[in-house]
Amino acid sequence: MSNENRTEISALGEFGLIQHLTDHILLTNKTSVKGVGDDAAILKAPENETIVVTTDMLVEGVHFDLSYAPLKHLGYKSVIANLSDVCAMNAVPHQILVGLAISNRFSLEAVDELYAGMLLACNHYGVDLVGGDTTSSRSGLVISITAIGYEAEEKLVTRSGARENDLLVVTGDLGGAYMGLQVLEREKSVFQAAPNAQPVLEGYDYVLERQLKPEARRDLHGLLNALDVKPTSMIDISDGLASEIKHLAECSTVGFDLYEEKIPVSPKTIEAAKEFNLDHVTCALNGGEDYELLFTIKPADYEKIKGNPSLTVIGHATADSMGCRLITRLGETIMLKAQGWNSFHQDNY
Amino acid sequence: MSNENRTEISALGEFGLIQHLTDHILLTNKTSVKGVGDDAAILKAPENETIVVTTDMLVEGVHFDLSYAPLKHLGYKSVIANLSDVCAMNAVPHQILVGLAISNRFSLEAVDELYAGMLLACNHYGVDLVGGDTTSSRSGLVISITAIGYEAEEKLVTRSGARENDLLVVTGDLGGAYMGLQVLEREKSVFQAAPNAQPVLEGYDYVLERQLKPEARRDLHGLLNALDVKPTSMIDISDGLASEIKHLAECSTVGFDLYEEKIPVSPKTIEAAKEFNLDHVTCALNGGEDYELLFTIKPADYEKIKGNPSLTVIGHATADSMGCRLITRLGETIMLKAQGWNSFHQDNY
Repeated sequence: MSNENRTEISALGEFGLIQHLTDHILLTNKTSVKGVGDDAAILKAPENETIVVTTDMLVEGVHFDLSYAPLKHLGYKSVIANLSDVCAMNAVPHQILVGLAISNRFSLEAVDELYAGMLLACNHYGVDLVGGDTTSSRSGLVISITAIGYEAEEKLVTRSGARENDLLVVTGDLGGAYMGLQVLEREKSVFQAAPNAQPVLEGYDYVLERQLKPEARRDLHGLLNALDVKPTSMIDISDGLASEIKHLAECSTVGFDLYEEKIPVSPKTIEAAKEFNLDHVTCALNGGEDYELLFTIKPADYEKIKGNPSLTVIGHATADSMGCRLITRLGETIMLKAQGWNSFHQDNY
Repeated sequence: MSNENRTEISALGEFGLIQHLTDHILLTNKTSVKGVGDDAAILKAPENETIVVTTDMLVEGVHFDLSYAPLKHLGYKSVIANLSDVCAMNAVPHQILVGLAISNRFSLEAVDELYAGMLLACNHYGVDLVGGDTTSSRSGLVISITAIGYEAEEKLVTRSGARENDLLVVTGDLGGAYMGLQVLEREKSVFQAAPNAQPVLEGYDYVLERQLKPEARRDLHGLLNALDVKPTSMIDISDGLASEIKHLAECSTVGFDLYEEKIPVSPKTIEAAKEFNLDHVTCALNGGEDYELLFTIKPADYEKIKGNPSLTVIGHATADSMGCRLITRLGETIMLKAQGWNSFHQDNY
């Protein structure tokens, strides 16, 4: 952003900034009674529905790197990550609240970009931004989002309902977001070595979009309703398939057999992985940030979901004592390791 | 904290830390269906009640200074600040979600202290900690709390219902938290000049407690119910009386006359202010962090509240065109200025 268009946030102050960011926000859901502008937002759950609520914190230098994540994309993605958690309960997201801590390194125009991305995601998913807090920070940018959704209690799906022989199903394809990150990291190091070099991003559209502008599987809720299938357990894939399978196993007290050949990976992801000398299955297992949904269904429901292009059966639940196992293409059986992302192991990023 | 008792957070990892912090949490409210441990918490609003939800972000070096704010107190206060917002809607707080970004400067023992303070506040206010997120940070500590409460929609009070001639009422007394901060700042500068000096904190218990361990006026909800009074507007005093009066005025499109002689200030606060050569009324007007509630009532309700030791009538609503005015002890009328706390004016702290 050029300095000519730079407005200092301190020129508006905290109240001025909040007003500037939220002035034009319209509420679209009947469940949003009152949005920003009071001590709290007022919401009304749909009749006979329960509330699900989740919160996530994204920290500059830990969860994102502004040298290659455009602020608008970052805003979009930070909302998606939270909506995905609501979808993973089989609920429908209706509202978000946004907390921002911003250092004076950021101009008003930069914050506008971030907010534009958040509001774009809200618009795309029919979600209202109903509240938040905006404050200064002594160092980097911190984004905290709380998402709220609703569904009848008996329709909600937790992580703990999987039973032996249930089928393990995943939406979409995996590993793309991780490969997108590899491409961005490579271009960043090229840029650091030669600041005049142009980034080579052509041909990587799919994996870059998976990394920079992921989507939440809000569609699964309607699809499952239409198919008359209620998952027995569900979780979203934020840290990597292996890590999430182990979460389901632990919460449901079962084991899982996962078939390597069944793991859905896009040809674009496979191509990028080859170029980086990476095993695409490893990327799918441990990459994270795909925001697909992983769930289990009763074996009897297989007929209802088979052939659906969005859904892939990748394994089944076994006895707890069997643990989580990967059955390789060669028929070998190896114990599944979760190397999922952990912000406290800072060398991961 | 001595190094002997220092456990690195990275030894537990993100999941291990969350489990360690939340393992022993019990849910006490019927509205808390499922707490931590899934993609989202599941809540159920009491029959015929609406939901209020608010979020706040506290940033090290901006909102708190760990050189004099003990972590347990900080945890307590960060919860209180959010519960106070729920109370300001005339709702009853039931749940919180906690987001923490922690640098590796903090040991597990330090995070335990912070969490202990939060859980103490939860326990004291009958609130359940139902979810959260814990991540690493590259620099300071950031605390993000979301609080959720409930009340019938017709009982909720916003900032916008004050009408001309309504009485302006405040709970408790004001300015104490600000004077507590002055005492702590003084001792900090003494310590910086002479690190072996013992802090002189005796005799300042009241103002220190107001600063370090404030309480939310959860009691007002029951008191107003018992008195059969519904405020016409309400706000909590986090930024200072003057700033909050101006918020009520703006949201309700009225003016206010505020009587200096009526502003409740504790003798302990007056004494401390004198010592610091500060005007105690200025402290009450602009100090902030008192977490008292400021509200308006219909003139007809005066008889119901008069004589209650927790409530003080400090002024009344006037026509919008009159603005917000302070009537001094000498009978002068001056326009009220809000110098409330603004995190983007960093020289304020």
